[in-house]
Amino acid sequence: MFRINKLTDYAVVLLVDMARSDKVRAAQQIALDTGVPLPTVAKVMKALLRSGLVVSHRGACGGYGLAHPPRSITVADMIQALEGPIALTACVDKAPHADGEEACGLGSLCPMNGQWDTVNRRVEAALRTVTLADMAAGPLPAFAPEFTRARAAVLAAEMGAERAGEMAS
Amino acid sequence: MFRINKLTDYAVVLLVDMARSDKVRAAQQIALDTGVPLPTVAKVMKALLRSGLVVSHRGACGGYGLAHPPRSITVADMIQALEGPIALTACVDKAPHADGEEACGLGSLCPMNGQWDTVNRRVEAALRTVTLADMAAGPLPAFAPEFTRARAAVLAAEMGAERAGEMAS
Repeated sequence: MFRINKLTDYAVVLLVDMARSDKVRAAQQIALDTGVPLPTVAKVMKALLRSGLVVSHRGACGGYGLAHPPRSITVADMIQALEGPIALTACVDKAPHADGEEACGLGSLCPMNGQWDTVNRRVEAALRTVTLADMAAGPLPAFAPEFTRARAAVLAAEMGAERAGEMAS
Repeated sequence: MFRINKLTDYAVVLLVDMARSDKVRAAQQIALDTGVPLPTVAKVMKALLRSGLVVSHRGACGGYGLAHPPRSITVADMIQALEGPIALTACVDKAPHADGEEACGLGSLCPMNGQWDTVNRRVEAALRTVTLADMAAGPLPAFAPEFTRARAAVLAAEMGAERAGEMAS
């Protein structure tokens, strides 16, 4: 099935947390509050800064904050910030492919030429109907405590199992 | 960017050709008419048969045909036939992952829980607004001749280059 990249998935998690907390926070604090590893937070913030979805504030109380109200940021904006234009097929995406994937070279003769454009435009329109405010208005009131504690428990259990394995060997 | 699989891309090309030709044809003939390799045609037809988008007719004049009128088959149907349910994130897809990808195990506590469902439903609805009839009603009147000739020319040029390389070495 076509999926968003893992990094985009993380970006949405981080943006939802930023929409809910509504405070300027350092990357370290965001990582701590969400359980997303700091290098991932840094990588995502770089892409979000570049696309203008977040702003960075310098200084002792500096950090990252949303550049726009959550109701003005759509799921399409978030996906495009990380992945570029919405294009379900490689041939419609005119951007050079990072993975070295090539166009077939027969675009002007292809019987599908232009047909996917309509599909992509409709998918993009659908992704514009859901905003960051919608994504943040979930059944849980806030992000962190339960999730972070549960995550910590999973990590502790894994570390415990490793330690037990070491002791047994 | 999230993309459909190459096999799904081929499936749409083959279904568009079937919608335009409106004849029962053997897999070999479909391969010949579209320039899609026979093993790929066979693989795609198997998936399309299973999901009920095409039917197979036995006998000397047998082959594959569309199971429904092109206006009743949507892009969502075609994608789902090859890729299963529309799910932009792995955690929303409840099906076991062929690639061994695992859910994070914190679904019930995840602050994003359920939010992606809305997005997936909207994307699926968008994909239901474009039909096979729309995809087949392209700027080019028919599939084969120009495309197949151009493809043959590309292949001949490649083979020529190989032969020239052999003669030079």
